[in-house]
Amino acid sequence: MIYFACDYQEGCAPEILKRLAQTNMEQTVGYGLDPYSLQAKRQIAVLCGLQRQKDAAPLWREAETAGTVHFLVGGTQTNDIVIRALLRPHQGVIAAQSGHVNVHETGAIEHSGHKVIALSSYDGKLTAAQIQNAILHHLYDPNIEHCVQPGMVYLSFPTETGLLYTKNELETISTICRQYSLPLYIDGARLGYGLSSPACDLTLQDIARLTDLFYIGGTKQGALFGEALVITNPLYRRDFRYLIKQGGAMLAKGRLLGLQFLTLFGKNKLYQRLSSHAIGQAMRIREALLDKHYELAYDSYTNQQFALMTPEQYEALSKDFVLDEGEHTPDGRLIVRICTCWATREENVTKLIDAL
Amino acid sequence: MIYFACDYQEGCAPEILKRLAQTNMEQTVGYGLDPYSLQAKRQIAVLCGLQRQKDAAPLWREAETAGTVHFLVGGTQTNDIVIRALLRPHQGVIAAQSGHVNVHETGAIEHSGHKVIALSSYDGKLTAAQIQNAILHHLYDPNIEHCVQPGMVYLSFPTETGLLYTKNELETISTICRQYSLPLYIDGARLGYGLSSPACDLTLQDIARLTDLFYIGGTKQGALFGEALVITNPLYRRDFRYLIKQGGAMLAKGRLLGLQFLTLFGKNKLYQRLSSHAIGQAMRIREALLDKHYELAYDSYTNQQFALMTPEQYEALSKDFVLDEGEHTPDGRLIVRICTCWATREENVTKLIDAL
Amino acid sequence: MIYFACDYQEGCAPEILKRLAQTNMEQTVGYGLDPYSLQAKRQIAVLCGLQRQKDAAPLWREAETAGTVHFLVGGTQTNDIVIRALLRPHQGVIAAQSGHVNVHETGAIEHSGHKVIALSSYDGKLTAAQIQNAILHHLYDPNIEHCVQPGMVYLSFPTETGLLYTKNELETISTICRQYSLPLYIDGARLGYGLSSPACDLTLQDIARLTDLFYIGGTKQGALFGEALVITNPLYRRDFRYLIKQGGAMLAKGRLLGLQFLTLFGKNKLYQRLSSHAIGQAMRIREALLDKHYELAYDSYTNQQFALMTPEQYEALSKDFVLDEGEHTPDGRLIVRICTCWATREENVTKLIDAL
Amino acid sequence: MIYFACDYQEGCAPEILKRLAQTNMEQTVGYGLDPYSLQAKRQIAVLCGLQRQKDAAPLWREAETAGTVHFLVGGTQTNDIVIRALLRPHQGVIAAQSGHVNVHETGAIEHSGHKVIALSSYDGKLTAAQIQNAILHHLYDPNIEHCVQPGMVYLSFPTETGLLYTKNELETISTICRQYSLPLYIDGARLGYGLSSPACDLTLQDIARLTDLFYIGGTKQGALFGEALVITNPLYRRDFRYLIKQGGAMLAKGRLLGLQFLTLFGKNKLYQRLSSHAIGQAMRIREALLDKHYELAYDSYTNQQFALMTPEQYEALSKDFVLDEGEHTPDGRLIVRICTCWATREENVTKLIDAL
Repeated sequence: MIYFACDYQEGCAPEILKRLAQTNMEQTVGYGLDPYSLQAKRQIAVLCGLQRQKDAAPLWREAETAGTVHFLVGGTQTNDIVIRALLRPHQGVIAAQSGHVNVHETGAIEHSGHKVIALSSYDGKLTAAQIQNAILHHLYDPNIEHCVQPGMVYLSFPTETGLLYTKNELETISTICRQYSLPLYIDGARLGYGLSSPACDLTLQDIARLTDLFYIGGTKQGALFGEALVITNPLYRRDFRYLIKQGGAMLAKGRLLGLQFLTLFGKNKLYQRLSSHAIGQAMRIREALLDKHYELAYDSYTNQQFALMTPEQYEALSKDFVLDEGEHTPDGRLIVRICTCWATREENVTKLIDAL
Repeated sequence: MIYFACDYQEGCAPEILKRLAQTNMEQTVGYGLDPYSLQAKRQIAVLCGLQRQKDAAPLWREAETAGTVHFLVGGTQTNDIVIRALLRPHQGVIAAQSGHVNVHETGAIEHSGHKVIALSSYDGKLTAAQIQNAILHHLYDPNIEHCVQPGMVYLSFPTETGLLYTKNELETISTICRQYSLPLYIDGARLGYGLSSPACDLTLQDIARLTDLFYIGGTKQGALFGEALVITNPLYRRDFRYLIKQGGAMLAKGRLLGLQFLTLFGKNKLYQRLSSHAIGQAMRIREALLDKHYELAYDSYTNQQFALMTPEQYEALSKDFVLDEGEHTPDGRLIVRICTCWATREENVTKLIDAL
Repeated sequence: MIYFACDYQEGCAPEILKRLAQTNMEQTVGYGLDPYSLQAKRQIAVLCGLQRQKDAAPLWREAETAGTVHFLVGGTQTNDIVIRALLRPHQGVIAAQSGHVNVHETGAIEHSGHKVIALSSYDGKLTAAQIQNAILHHLYDPNIEHCVQPGMVYLSFPTETGLLYTKNELETISTICRQYSLPLYIDGARLGYGLSSPACDLTLQDIARLTDLFYIGGTKQGALFGEALVITNPLYRRDFRYLIKQGGAMLAKGRLLGLQFLTLFGKNKLYQRLSSHAIGQAMRIREALLDKHYELAYDSYTNQQFALMTPEQYEALSKDFVLDEGEHTPDGRLIVRICTCWATREENVTKLIDAL
Repeated sequence: MIYFACDYQEGCAPEILKRLAQTNMEQTVGYGLDPYSLQAKRQIAVLCGLQRQKDAAPLWREAETAGTVHFLVGGTQTNDIVIRALLRPHQGVIAAQSGHVNVHETGAIEHSGHKVIALSSYDGKLTAAQIQNAILHHLYDPNIEHCVQPGMVYLSFPTETGLLYTKNELETISTICRQYSLPLYIDGARLGYGLSSPACDLTLQDIARLTDLFYIGGTKQGALFGEALVITNPLYRRDFRYLIKQGGAMLAKGRLLGLQFLTLFGKNKLYQRLSSHAIGQAMRIREALLDKHYELAYDSYTNQQFALMTPEQYEALSKDFVLDEGEHTPDGRLIVRICTCWATREENVTKLIDAL
């Protein structure tokens, strides 16, 4: 069987394994304060435009205390910790109904005490107008204190439906958020697959400039595991390491995260290359789907493609391929997700295309 | 100004004040273990059909420990405590989108760690089919453990829109809940106004028989404050007093609650009489509204009437009356809530009717 | 039986019942925004020195929004809400081991997510040095982020052991708290009994000046129920009504609280008179205990007296009096608490003294 | 510098890295349902005596649903999830004052809503009598519902002070726990170092037999990361995967955990060999300390040795070695922790011994 069901089915980029092996018996301090982690944090801060290369020194210390960049193990814990760090008890997080925090984290956000203020969205994206309406609806509610107060905004980029916000859309959302002093947070579990998309007009530095926090996904993008949280707004950096520890997300051997991100974001631009590979293969599948007259559920230019298939089509493909069966449409078709990733083999994509 | 804006604008039934005055300087133990509270708990258990009068003695002790009936101060805390008592951390409560726990408790349920699994409802009621679908949707989700597990069902009776479940509807919902072992809980903030409605075919004993827990509202029904929680299913009684104390809902002078419910549910059926009075006045308003060709937003036979009014109509009425302005309809009208209660004066209703 | 077991065994000061009866059928808005509540809040703010009488007008509005004074139903919920309002998730509250929040609130503070950082205390009081040590111990811990961060300080005044902080002690504690930016909160469940004590050199205005928040207990001091939270530091006022609602502590008929505090803190100084009465009776008991050579467990000049008794002595007294049996000492004696309150009758105290 | 400061300063056993490399590009399903994880879970269940080898098949399925064995990433999250899974909101966990959950998890347990009922302990161990006293103290408290109810018992084995419970001690504690229906949970972050100690008379199967849940530490014992939670009592298995996901502890590439534990608990008994190595080196240090007349703070026969040193001694050693400086004793000495682990080199121990 060939898997296109998700983007975490293989191990990691071989460069990473090699680096882990090379450093395996070295002794370092734990909990993310080792030299590899500090260097990786600096590197990422520089790439995000948060620090010039030559100013790096002060960050080292700051990284130990207040922290611009933190490495965590997985996405659910990153989302949970960010949200619990930012909100007061009576506040909730605005998100799309289909947002990962609302659907697929088993109530982790609620466990931390906060409502997800879920806005309906037909394609998984939120608009600036929707967000503003939610804020105003609250502000003008005569029973204002009887309702959860919007306290921050959560976007996924790309969305769970494979879509991207344009620079213009993100700028408008960012402006609204700043107008009402709501921090804007982006879940970038597949950030690289977004930034490498031909449909993307945003850069990593744009993301950093327009948000208050976001994370750069590692798990789905070539690392064994790990996400790099970037806190671009210094207001929200305070005491973050406490929250990471409380959330069970402070890896004892923190250097494992540092080494991975150092490898991914080093000179050879591994992260970018791995992302581009996945996008290239996804675009081949997209074109094949369109050529063969499949309808696309979402117009995705990222590593997740969503094709509408009849049950028969899906069943036929399932003999050789593992795809991800999603919701059923009213006309009886399935929304089938096909994922590529950093590890997807060209020949497997060819086989899939032939079978479509 | 004459208020019809809500049902908690006056103090309490004079009989209650009198009883409080009579017993004011008596000394009793605290925290709901005084003789008045125990007697009131027994009385309510008997009325709910949970105990025959002559078997009452054992309840006294049980009321002290495990507890069939508990008195709490307000509705939000009752809902919060019931839900935290019943759910495990990964579970949520199924409720209508418009349910009080979802909208007007400032995230109290989420503060206790639980998601409100909000089902859409055009009129504030849930159907058995909707509930079953939500349960099945979860059970057949391939990512089952990534989603919040439905752990109980919350209904309001009457709903926030003034509507009632019929006996048949409630029996079907109850059957579904028992089939999937989900406790069924009814928020009865206005229970009396429901049971006294001409449209109601349920009795207090039916409610007790068909649910696992419910509460009998006092605050909106003639008490100064207070709600009587009835735990009909012994499975859910364990350690409930701990949860009440933890929730800040165990009144030091618990007898204040006992005395009020003893007065309301004594031989003279005060609770029933007060409820009937409110319903009688509400029916006068309902008929006047229909006579004068107002459209009703919800077909309510309870103490809350919802009339569609033009802004001009509302403004004109607002010179002499305080009503509750709700949502705006797409055609620019307002949904205006008009509440009667145990204290509503007949002459004031006449004045309102004249002004409509 | 005559009760001296606690200070919430009677109803309330008759003046309050009378006031409730007079206003019973008036219609007011709910949730503490009625004129009685606003007037009572203003009154208390003035008495605390937080506002001059003639400046009162602006407070009215502020009371509605940000809020200097809030009325809540009981002590546990007040403590819980204050602590959840002030702390971030990784912070805890410093308290004496015997503090009410640590012992007798069924983990309400932990339910809101926070550790009580309990410092040992032989008599229920904390010293400034202890507090500073706890702060410094944390600041110099090499695993600082692995430990709960002290986020505020909780004192009870009087303590659960009937003791008082002197002006000098409270000033030193306040200075330490301000030096490390930790808000200082006083649980004043029995504040009046403290301020009326012959051993007290603090005034209400001192308490307001030296703390960031405190509450003036009503439940144990002549009200039916209710506590007045005073937020002296404007930093901590933001959005407080949301937290009160979330905590299930926003009484629908908020005026019941307003009326009670208006009566207690009106021109006739009822609160003060009721407190003084209780203290007078307690001092009679104290002197009798000393005269009859009972040892006192704590040197209390407030309404709670703690006598060491042999089991025989305690049993003999228990024929006619209900006292509060506390811990056993190593030599087999009991620490027996004897409480007076606003309602304690002189003749009952005489009977108790005769029986000692 | 040579590190003896803790037991997570190196990477992992080379056998594990090799296994990760061999399987790196294989495709498997995620979230711990891959064949490697299932096989590893079976293996551990068999070793714990929870299943005979030949009965293994059924476990495979059960492991997917209810689950005897689960793999989590780290200790804090394992403790947090176990405790939140087992306790109701009003319950707390009994632990030694020095227990990891009480001191070094930044209030993770409290964040999940539960008090740590911390019992004092001079050496980090709890006695059966202490536990029973805490339970009885609660049961006979007249204000029972005002206090947190003991809901489970947490032990660390070895303790944070390097000590072990004897078989006899653990059997007595287990009996008490079962008598009062309190689940007994062992934090085995260093379980292997305990079981391999010459002072240990317990086996893995004894631990499984005497507890309701425990975890086998991987992070400090040769894995890159990971802990294997064993739920020996089927009562507590229900819905555990939901809780793991909610706790942010369900690794997307779950096979990384499966592969590591498969390697550690395979035929060549790697876990045991690595543990024994660490203990052997620790015993060399122990003997040297005693030979050189250092006083031991705790009489440890595990991989953590605690020597009392003067500041001068500690400073001298710190030129070449990184040790862990702990508390200061009243006489001005330091409690210095010296850790060995699976990776400790014999020659480095020799150098340390020479320098002592």
